[in-house]
Amino acid sequence: MLKSPEEYRRSLKEMRPNVHKFGELIEDVTTHPATKRTVESHSRIYALAIDAEYEDILTTDSPLTGEKVSRYLSIMRSAEDMIANTKIKRLLFNVTGTCTGGRCGGWNGINAMWPTTFDLDAKAGTDYHERLKEWLAQAQRNDITMSVALTDPKGNRTLRPSEQDDPDMSLRMVERRDGGMVVRGAKIMICGVAAANEIFVMPGTAYGEADKDYAISFAIPRDAEGIRCVETTHPGDRRELEEGFDNPVGCGITQSYILFEDVFVPEERVFMAGEFKSSLPAVMGFIAPYRATMGGCVAGQGDVMVGASILIAWANGLSEKVFREKLTQMVANNETTFGMGVAAAVMGEAHPSGSWRTNQLLANVNKLHIATLPYETKRLAQEIGGGIAETGCMPSYRDMTDPDYGEMVKKYLKAAAPATARVRVARLIEWLTLGAGVPGCMHGGGSPDGARLIIQRTAEFDRCVGMAMELAGLEEGDISPPKKN
Amino acid sequence: MLKSPEEYRRSLKEMRPNVHKFGELIEDVTTHPATKRTVESHSRIYALAIDAEYEDILTTDSPLTGEKVSRYLSIMRSAEDMIANTKIKRLLFNVTGTCTGGRCGGWNGINAMWPTTFDLDAKAGTDYHERLKEWLAQAQRNDITMSVALTDPKGNRTLRPSEQDDPDMSLRMVERRDGGMVVRGAKIMICGVAAANEIFVMPGTAYGEADKDYAISFAIPRDAEGIRCVETTHPGDRRELEEGFDNPVGCGITQSYILFEDVFVPEERVFMAGEFKSSLPAVMGFIAPYRATMGGCVAGQGDVMVGASILIAWANGLSEKVFREKLTQMVANNETTFGMGVAAAVMGEAHPSGSWRTNQLLANVNKLHIATLPYETKRLAQEIGGGIAETGCMPSYRDMTDPDYGEMVKKYLKAAAPATARVRVARLIEWLTLGAGVPGCMHGGGSPDGARLIIQRTAEFDRCVGMAMELAGLEEGDISPPKKN
Amino acid sequence: MLKSPEEYRRSLKEMRPNVHKFGELIEDVTTHPATKRTVESHSRIYALAIDAEYEDILTTDSPLTGEKVSRYLSIMRSAEDMIANTKIKRLLFNVTGTCTGGRCGGWNGINAMWPTTFDLDAKAGTDYHERLKEWLAQAQRNDITMSVALTDPKGNRTLRPSEQDDPDMSLRMVERRDGGMVVRGAKIMICGVAAANEIFVMPGTAYGEADKDYAISFAIPRDAEGIRCVETTHPGDRRELEEGFDNPVGCGITQSYILFEDVFVPEERVFMAGEFKSSLPAVMGFIAPYRATMGGCVAGQGDVMVGASILIAWANGLSEKVFREKLTQMVANNETTFGMGVAAAVMGEAHPSGSWRTNQLLANVNKLHIATLPYETKRLAQEIGGGIAETGCMPSYRDMTDPDYGEMVKKYLKAAAPATARVRVARLIEWLTLGAGVPGCMHGGGSPDGARLIIQRTAEFDRCVGMAMELAGLEEGDISPPKKN
Amino acid sequence: MLKSPEEYRRSLKEMRPNVHKFGELIEDVTTHPATKRTVESHSRIYALAIDAEYEDILTTDSPLTGEKVSRYLSIMRSAEDMIANTKIKRLLFNVTGTCTGGRCGGWNGINAMWPTTFDLDAKAGTDYHERLKEWLAQAQRNDITMSVALTDPKGNRTLRPSEQDDPDMSLRMVERRDGGMVVRGAKIMICGVAAANEIFVMPGTAYGEADKDYAISFAIPRDAEGIRCVETTHPGDRRELEEGFDNPVGCGITQSYILFEDVFVPEERVFMAGEFKSSLPAVMGFIAPYRATMGGCVAGQGDVMVGASILIAWANGLSEKVFREKLTQMVANNETTFGMGVAAAVMGEAHPSGSWRTNQLLANVNKLHIATLPYETKRLAQEIGGGIAETGCMPSYRDMTDPDYGEMVKKYLKAAAPATARVRVARLIEWLTLGAGVPGCMHGGGSPDGARLIIQRTAEFDRCVGMAMELAGLEEGDISPPKKN
Repeated sequence: MLKSPEEYRRSLKEMRPNVHKFGELIEDVTTHPATKRTVESHSRIYALAIDAEYEDILTTDSPLTGEKVSRYLSIMRSAEDMIANTKIKRLLFNVTGTCTGGRCGGWNGINAMWPTTFDLDAKAGTDYHERLKEWLAQAQRNDITMSVALTDPKGNRTLRPSEQDDPDMSLRMVERRDGGMVVRGAKIMICGVAAANEIFVMPGTAYGEADKDYAISFAIPRDAEGIRCVETTHPGDRRELEEGFDNPVGCGITQSYILFEDVFVPEERVFMAGEFKSSLPAVMGFIAPYRATMGGCVAGQGDVMVGASILIAWANGLSEKVFREKLTQMVANNETTFGMGVAAAVMGEAHPSGSWRTNQLLANVNKLHIATLPYETKRLAQEIGGGIAETGCMPSYRDMTDPDYGEMVKKYLKAAAPATARVRVARLIEWLTLGAGVPGCMHGGGSPDGARLIIQRTAEFDRCVGMAMELAGLEEGDISPPKKN
Repeated sequence: MLKSPEEYRRSLKEMRPNVHKFGELIEDVTTHPATKRTVESHSRIYALAIDAEYEDILTTDSPLTGEKVSRYLSIMRSAEDMIANTKIKRLLFNVTGTCTGGRCGGWNGINAMWPTTFDLDAKAGTDYHERLKEWLAQAQRNDITMSVALTDPKGNRTLRPSEQDDPDMSLRMVERRDGGMVVRGAKIMICGVAAANEIFVMPGTAYGEADKDYAISFAIPRDAEGIRCVETTHPGDRRELEEGFDNPVGCGITQSYILFEDVFVPEERVFMAGEFKSSLPAVMGFIAPYRATMGGCVAGQGDVMVGASILIAWANGLSEKVFREKLTQMVANNETTFGMGVAAAVMGEAHPSGSWRTNQLLANVNKLHIATLPYETKRLAQEIGGGIAETGCMPSYRDMTDPDYGEMVKKYLKAAAPATARVRVARLIEWLTLGAGVPGCMHGGGSPDGARLIIQRTAEFDRCVGMAMELAGLEEGDISPPKKN
Repeated sequence: MLKSPEEYRRSLKEMRPNVHKFGELIEDVTTHPATKRTVESHSRIYALAIDAEYEDILTTDSPLTGEKVSRYLSIMRSAEDMIANTKIKRLLFNVTGTCTGGRCGGWNGINAMWPTTFDLDAKAGTDYHERLKEWLAQAQRNDITMSVALTDPKGNRTLRPSEQDDPDMSLRMVERRDGGMVVRGAKIMICGVAAANEIFVMPGTAYGEADKDYAISFAIPRDAEGIRCVETTHPGDRRELEEGFDNPVGCGITQSYILFEDVFVPEERVFMAGEFKSSLPAVMGFIAPYRATMGGCVAGQGDVMVGASILIAWANGLSEKVFREKLTQMVANNETTFGMGVAAAVMGEAHPSGSWRTNQLLANVNKLHIATLPYETKRLAQEIGGGIAETGCMPSYRDMTDPDYGEMVKKYLKAAAPATARVRVARLIEWLTLGAGVPGCMHGGGSPDGARLIIQRTAEFDRCVGMAMELAGLEEGDISPPKKN
Repeated sequence: MLKSPEEYRRSLKEMRPNVHKFGELIEDVTTHPATKRTVESHSRIYALAIDAEYEDILTTDSPLTGEKVSRYLSIMRSAEDMIANTKIKRLLFNVTGTCTGGRCGGWNGINAMWPTTFDLDAKAGTDYHERLKEWLAQAQRNDITMSVALTDPKGNRTLRPSEQDDPDMSLRMVERRDGGMVVRGAKIMICGVAAANEIFVMPGTAYGEADKDYAISFAIPRDAEGIRCVETTHPGDRRELEEGFDNPVGCGITQSYILFEDVFVPEERVFMAGEFKSSLPAVMGFIAPYRATMGGCVAGQGDVMVGASILIAWANGLSEKVFREKLTQMVANNETTFGMGVAAAVMGEAHPSGSWRTNQLLANVNKLHIATLPYETKRLAQEIGGGIAETGCMPSYRDMTDPDYGEMVKKYLKAAAPATARVRVARLIEWLTLGAGVPGCMHGGGSPDGARLIIQRTAEFDRCVGMAMELAGLEEGDISPPKKN
């Protein structure tokens, strides 16, 4: 059953308050200024899903329930499904200006665990896949919002979890108990937690036997006993606590540190519990579609930067044609990350479990673009925007509305548009390029260096060497790799 | 009927000699050193098409003949067909090291004229589409190789064809005659002509009424009465006339100036004759798939550069791991132009005539990558290759085999591989990056500035402005474009 | 007489409070959290100038007073003096992390007006140069801090000042009065105003006769009657109002909107008053050294990013060697903008007034690097820093010190370094790349497009054409520019 | 005594023929088509040195002879001298279109050995410095052209010279004999040898004790007994053997493999003979000024590309303004490598021997620009030039002058300029970007990776870490490097 935005908000209000920011417990995430923007962002997904114009892209038929469900809770079974993911991400960035990771992360998580549990069960005779199916069917019926939690604090990067001074530096199973397990640790920098009904937990990396207690996956209500969420703070997010248009945007992004203080997870919600060999496929199954489809995210935000750049030019009295070359480059950047995401979907392949596997090589190449092109797009937006957009070089809303000198400030902020309109668009550019709207495109879904590693392992270097030998007229053995190096 | 490589070569031998290079008339293009390499390249297509491993990708069923035909003579009817185009281009660059434009250009031409003639007939009541069908069915049965000829000499770029001092600067119809028309002028820089059985001619640009005689399209045997082909000369192609391995590659690329001295074209081979309004869709229909699928070409050559770079490292005694970052970047460049071509295909749409239309925006964005990324890939190959690969800084084959000092030259050219093997791979890199193997990826299919123009016209700037206004909390009219600028 | 830091602070305390931020009048800029950081930054200049290790670079002998004075108040008379400028900017960014434009802007201003007034007097028989000399001698004796104010609000960019609906959109002379003139309007985005004793005002662009009242230059105490300063607000600067280490840096940058409400400027402080033909040389004389020496600014901040990147790697338990390639690129970026600044100084020439003129071409080329390379350096710092540095993805100081859950937050923020140390360095990277430490390197000193225009006018295209003709064996007239285009 | 061009040519004619190309012994390098172009290039240096307009830049006073000598044979004693080096390189590329390494390499060599022998003598009590002085005074008096020979064949890159199967893979001393030493091996890829009177030999890398016989330096007549030179062949250089304008340029570049078959070097010409510890300073003393001043080379060739690009636009009927952005970027690239060379000179320091030491860090950063920016400049020249310039896509001179169809070819090659003029400039661009005019800027003076290594060793990472700690409020020990990694 698709929820209305109101039903979604109500579901959040009914949860136990356990989100903190700036030392304060947030009683109602839907109204508190620190979290209401991300709730608004996610609400818009619910609104679009029941909007005739968008329902095709945002919903799909579920083989599990036989009903129309949100795509965010669906298993992607074809290239088309995966392309829809990229398109949805772009659309939502268009509509909210930033990341709604509280739903799309979870989407990615269930699609990573779907084939993983399928293969794991086949090998180990476990029943994780069935549990996942049942839980997912219920999630679809309730149309929940669900963050994904992958990243562990990790502590010292050169030591494995079990080698750390503090064994809690990655989330782990501390006890198997009748009917479930108990977990302790934290998952950090998790997107959209305040807007989420549940958290879908996955192993943070590939583990060996010594670290098998860290190889865990499960779904849990965000307000379950023992869970506490502490929001992170970004540049510019203090403006969200204020009136006025220093932050002119009604949507927003949040990221949480989720603390697990000996949390009990009932068996039917556990999808991995120590099967360390499945942690690698789980993570790889997460990474590839994530890195591919994120191209839609940065393209979607880039679209907004294109629009904002044109508006600031107009506000300054200039035709956007003056900036033709720069706008073309911005468009090219957007279409590149979007297009590469589409290509990674199309060049994928079906998995026996019925899900669709992204092409690893193209997905990871896209990650490199995602880690560079948006930076150029931002720079160009700042170049077009002029000094006020570059660093938000304008007096505050409070100064613009000061009874004494506010009018004079506005007098000097007007150009070809009135001061308020011009400031709003300049602040939007600032929000997109330096402020609270900046999503974590560089390290979200893992670092570019991680992507480079996968590219090195996936690229067919042998085949390339073979064709070069053939063309150069060389025979086997004419040139060989060095013995050691 | 698919031809064997031998049958293909025989078909070329049977043609009237009309290809010239260095002031010489080439009697047999299959054996003359200036043209035998491009014939060899195209022969490999024929060989692969009847090779069980490759026939799926290189052939398809024709609705026209009801038989299996070469894809090079097929109409692309789906995204999959167009992706196959990109893959074939990559494969052929892998196998020949360079461009086999003598077939793939023609492929693109028929796919541009297919919907164009369909729409034109619907409006004008002409029968071009039927003619094209019949001619094409015959071409499929004969499995011909067919270059496409689009580029006109143009003369002064700021004047239209009919404004030029010399009206022949673009190819034109000089006479309509019973049963056909007579054309005069030239098409220049045409790829693979020496290896072609026929030439598929298209209008070189969009024409207005004043230039309607230039709006012509037709297919003609390469050796038809009145046609003379003069080959161009590239850096390094004089090596093709010599023995030895200064050019170690058995394949090659050629480009011709095709001179039309009042050539008669029979009616059944004419697909446009003065319908100037159809010149724009013809050209646009050519450009988009060309710019998309060329990504396969440069990826395919990039694959060879990756292989050659690893080989030269080995020949120098180094592990390729030393150059890990550079190889990763080369791979990323290859996959980007390839992937964007795939995306442009997938995001396309069906045309009522049954053909598939590429996504213009993605295709033209890919053109920008094609005009830059291969240059970086070449630079990296030269960086890995060292001084000898950068500028081919080695004595010639004749010096290496000189009875007096040849051995001494070889003594100093050996490294971790014998001199000959090392030189062969260094010369391959030279051939790929500076020499006769360099295809025209920058201007082939039109210039990058042309692509930028299409991007500017295709990008949805209005939609972007709308979303930025929404997010910034602006209302209609708050900011408007300047009156004039 | 060189002031001590204490004397400098005292001089600020003695001024009339006229700086506003967030709707509040700041009573004491040296202690108010919104301005104390920029005062601290500028204090460090005073401290270094009397420090034996740095006095050579920070001071010089004045021909005006015969005494050792701050270089910030000196006329640059040689390439060495101008190189010192670049070095000082780098040093101060090293020491404060950000911009101390409250002194170095003024330095640039007096060096622009020195030759301008010299030439103007020679032509017009005025005595501006003498006035400037006398005022400067006094400024040197008092060792003042002096911002430069160039940028006007401008209003609609396509209309000249006198064509605007509101004639005040650029600062202008509204009345010549006995012993001086009265000015109205504003100068905006002016750096370091809160830390300044005086403001050095210059024309914002080149004016024609119709706009001659805008062609004005003068020096004025920052707290003169009729002047009001309203601070701008940047992402992250609200943290400056808080306790703790969410902003770990004791220095800072501020930018002001300076409102002039009919301010009287006494004659002896007026250096241009309507001589519109001198506005172009004034602006050009400002731009060139500014664009050259800013290379030191971004290099200096880049140095800090290099250091912070190494620290965050260590804090995460990694050797900096892992990021060798990235650090090398960061260093190369820093040295490029620094080196180009040095080159622009060296390739300059002496002006008859005794001052040194920067090489325009090299200075403007450097501007293009300044508008791009630091963005790459920031991106690389974020790439090395990981998710927490990229967007400051950490709970706030208040959460880290919360009596209830603060310890648990810190538990999960530690790595190879304790939580607080790691957070401090991650926040430093955030401050440098997204937060309050980001200076306006893109548009400071004018936009990159302005620099491109000057490059186009300065480059010796004719000479290049001549050498190409010579080499290609062409004679005069073989190829000529098109008549019109 | 400065030689006239004629005297220089005569000096070459008088030498023993020992230069080979394409299996042929060249009897007279001044007239043979394979070598006459590089002789012409070097002749122009002689012509300019006695031209009043250029003598200041090309000559200087020698403390050794007390006379005016060619700068190419001078010791650089100041930043100004080193800037002159950069300017001369730019000028000669402007005038010849390509590299005149036959003189400027030697210049660099003597400046590397000057301080090296000075320091070596001080430590070891040898008299190399005096020998160098005397030999140099004589060289100045004879105004010789002198190539530098540094690069050894090296064989397997992972083995040291003495570990190679063949000990001759680097040039070595095989015998000390009364009055001198005997050397065997080869120096390869040596520029301008055919135009040189002498060869100045240096160690190819830094050697340890085991390889001390490779640590040798000396000057020797190019035609000394036992020396044989074999020219390398580059793409496009076969055109130099032909008539017509397929290569329209009268100047050229050559590179040789110099084979030493037990060559005796008299004592007074030996400047290092086994003092292996001096090989590192020799090489480093060579590298730094080379990498700095090469910026002038690529800038100088870039100037020609700018000119040629404008000409081809005109020849096509277009205004150069169409390509404004691209030309601006080309100019920026040229000025960057030039400017960084100037900066590396200025930031250098004096050596006790009286010579000037380049700043290592800036010189090596410039190497990175030299290895990338010219590639972009070439790409832009090809983009502006269109298809004919990109790959030289034009029929040959022989086809253009064919009695039968030559006029028709020319008819279609004309545009806004006649065919011949247009082809000449298109061939010039081809020659510069793909053909025989391409110098080895990537690996000349060592590879970019070598430069990266020096940057890593030269950059002050500790100082950067210190300033970041200070700014972040960290104390000694708060964050430390990992123990091992």
